[in-house]
Amino acid sequence: MVEQFQRLPGIGPKSAQRLALHILKRPETEVQELAQALLDAKKQVGLCSVCFHLSADPVCEICRAPSRDPNTVCVVSDSRDVIAIEKTREYKGKYHVLGGLISPMEGIGPDQLHITPLVRRVNQDNIQEVIMAISPSVEGETTTLYIGKLLKPFTRVTRIAFGLPMGGDLEYADEVTLARALEGRRDLDMG
Amino acid sequence: MVEQFQRLPGIGPKSAQRLALHILKRPETEVQELAQALLDAKKQVGLCSVCFHLSADPVCEICRAPSRDPNTVCVVSDSRDVIAIEKTREYKGKYHVLGGLISPMEGIGPDQLHITPLVRRVNQDNIQEVIMAISPSVEGETTTLYIGKLLKPFTRVTRIAFGLPMGGDLEYADEVTLARALEGRRDLDMG
Repeated sequence: MVEQFQRLPGIGPKSAQRLALHILKRPETEVQELAQALLDAKKQVGLCSVCFHLSADPVCEICRAPSRDPNTVCVVSDSRDVIAIEKTREYKGKYHVLGGLISPMEGIGPDQLHITPLVRRVNQDNIQEVIMAISPSVEGETTTLYIGKLLKPFTRVTRIAFGLPMGGDLEYADEVTLARALEGRRDLDMG
Repeated sequence: MVEQFQRLPGIGPKSAQRLALHILKRPETEVQELAQALLDAKKQVGLCSVCFHLSADPVCEICRAPSRDPNTVCVVSDSRDVIAIEKTREYKGKYHVLGGLISPMEGIGPDQLHITPLVRRVNQDNIQEVIMAISPSVEGETTTLYIGKLLKPFTRVTRIAFGLPMGGDLEYADEVTLARALEGRRDLDMG
């Protein structure tokens, strides 16, 4: 059991032992409930067949929601990014989850990601804007540019802004962020 | 001496005592050198009469440099911001240091900042772009909008980008930053 716990992310040998000892002290019914919950979740939650976000149904809630703009698709690497963006309550379009980033170092090519279904979606569903919301790492840039090249002939492709984080002080921003914030400047909107 | 040290930023009672004891152990000539260095710096360094950046000369090096674009002015709150932006080596225009931000809470109004000389500069020197590089706090926004309103009739006013910091992971960005990054999205530049 300790070994199994250690395979979970963020759980080291000590935490694993603590968790295992906790389990041993609980009544058997409780342990059965936990085990069943894991099995049920694994059995019930799959990927949405449209956007590849985690979903208990064949098509996820966001894809089915009639209130959401079907012509805008936000492309993210992971389901966690969908959850982060949903928390802002600002975005009203749909998503497409790639399931990772292109990484030659780790042997992940475009074919291992959900890119082909994205191209198909854009062509079939009259998508008017694809927003690339990918972190600005080397892999992120590669993936953004690869998908941008594929989709530009068919639709408008935008990317999220990089610059000073909110609450961030100019003085404490790293040089690359500051350079990017200056480069990405825009006309002052007097609202 | 301990009391004097304690008035410096980031120096608490313990650090002040440590510094004072260090000074007492040094030879008198060394202490005299330190004291003289403080007095000399204070006497020699004033503010540039054009941009209000710290300067040993009446007009600072950046204002005098013929290689720098005289038609672009980057407005910052403090000399530290000039130093931070210079470190990026990306910006080739001039600066204007306000000497603070508008803050009704602290009783700082526009008249206490170097705003009037900025307006004069814009009108006299054929400034074609004023870049507001001010941190996105309440005071920062107030100051940016106040100056924007003053200058818009005379020149183009832009502001630096707010969004995801470089190396920042989407998942760990706070909600306001993420909302701002989405709102500030731009067309993907395929270079």
